[in-house]
Amino acid sequence: PCDLTGWWENDLGSRMHVLEVDSEGNFSGEYHTAVSSTDKAIQPSPLVGSQHLDKDGQCTFGFTVSWKKFSDSTAVFVGQCFTRDNGDEVLQTSWLLREKVDSLPSDWKATR
Amino acid sequence: PCDLTGWWENDLGSRMHVLEVDSEGNFSGEYHTAVSSTDKAIQPSPLVGSQHLDKDGQCTFGFTVSWKKFSDSTAVFVGQCFTRDNGDEVLQTSWLLREKVDSLPSDWKATR
Amino acid sequence: PCDLTGWWENDLGSRMHVLEVDSEGNFSGEYHTAVSSTDKAIQPSPLVGSQHLDKDGQCTFGFTVSWKKFSDSTAVFVGQCFTRDNGDEVLQTSWLLREKVDSLPSDWKATR
Amino acid sequence: PCDLTGWWENDLGSRMHVLEVDSEGNFSGEYHTAVSSTDKAIQPSPLVGSQHLDKDGQCTFGFTVSWKKFSDSTAVFVGQCFTRDNGDEVLQTSWLLREKVDSLPSDWKATR
Repeated sequence: PCDLTGWWENDLGSRMHVLEVDSEGNFSGEYHTAVSSTDKAIQPSPLVGSQHLDKDGQCTFGFTVSWKKFSDSTAVFVGQCFTRDNGDEVLQTSWLLREKVDSLPSDWKATR
Repeated sequence: PCDLTGWWENDLGSRMHVLEVDSEGNFSGEYHTAVSSTDKAIQPSPLVGSQHLDKDGQCTFGFTVSWKKFSDSTAVFVGQCFTRDNGDEVLQTSWLLREKVDSLPSDWKATR
Repeated sequence: PCDLTGWWENDLGSRMHVLEVDSEGNFSGEYHTAVSSTDKAIQPSPLVGSQHLDKDGQCTFGFTVSWKKFSDSTAVFVGQCFTRDNGDEVLQTSWLLREKVDSLPSDWKATR
Repeated sequence: PCDLTGWWENDLGSRMHVLEVDSEGNFSGEYHTAVSSTDKAIQPSPLVGSQHLDKDGQCTFGFTVSWKKFSDSTAVFVGQCFTRDNGDEVLQTSWLLREKVDSLPSDWKATR
């Protein structure tokens, strides 16, 4: 089946380490981003999330990354596991990055 | 400061119950959605996420909802706390909903 | 039916003026934004787009705003017309704002 | 500089034909999608949009595709031109697809 445990790398060179997935599908881990919208030094950032445990290995999942060590932003990722014809597992994901803004009138531009 | 603990309701009538936020900013809870893209009976769904712990009460946060009791989809929400002039706390959020698709060529339409 | 011709105002105070919609559903107009991600003085900006011409008055539509008078960004809006119970017409829209970035590796953060 | 005139193809196999870009940056053309969220036969669909005319060839642009020949949906695309090291021009785009829904309470799920 699909199990997010382990290391994953994306097209931008960011890497994610998911520790053990529990029997409910919850997991935690660390996200090592290769890119940042701030000028501060990037640091590994904690993530928490959950995945479905479908038997067919094509489960959907989601997780939150808190960039708290170098930023006041938060990102969320949502996606699905697939297996390519050659047997490789691949994760297809979409994401939103929320940057902190100083007041409600600036809310419209806070998410990318 | 901003503490997501408690009950929150959105414009669509969905309600969220966040249990205790721990010292790292991690939390879990239950999401009671008022809307669904499936025809199955809606049920409360588990959520996990994390928030920043900024002193100014305008922290960003994110969480994942696994609709596993009635769907194979996953949703993620990301947002920020604000306090209105009248003292009310309000959460501004954006979300992505990932629906399970049967193969990679259908990936383009899986997220809304 | 639904006809976008005329003035529309959104929750943020931005206003849009759509000139005549032609028989194909194409239109042009001017967008007067109330908000901006740049520091330059805001100016009315040209828009072009198209709408469906469904008889039921609930057509979908889309348009592009080029902020060329004060920015090198472009925005797109997509939405649908509805009529409230009191007879008011309302447009529900979503948007993407593309900011110019200097190279491909920065592409990931260019859209909000 | 950047000129969208001509044929473009994306990773999914969809092709776009942009006719002449006028002196204001406006253009029209036809979009030949390779994928669809409906079961009806796909047909070439009209598009209208506009691009900036920056001298550096990295302009942003946007356009609207009305799928009116086989669907009541509308899509918008926004993006930027880049030139790869080998001289190839590439367009980086993001999109939103609006499907028609029957009433305001279903609006939340209309856009992907």
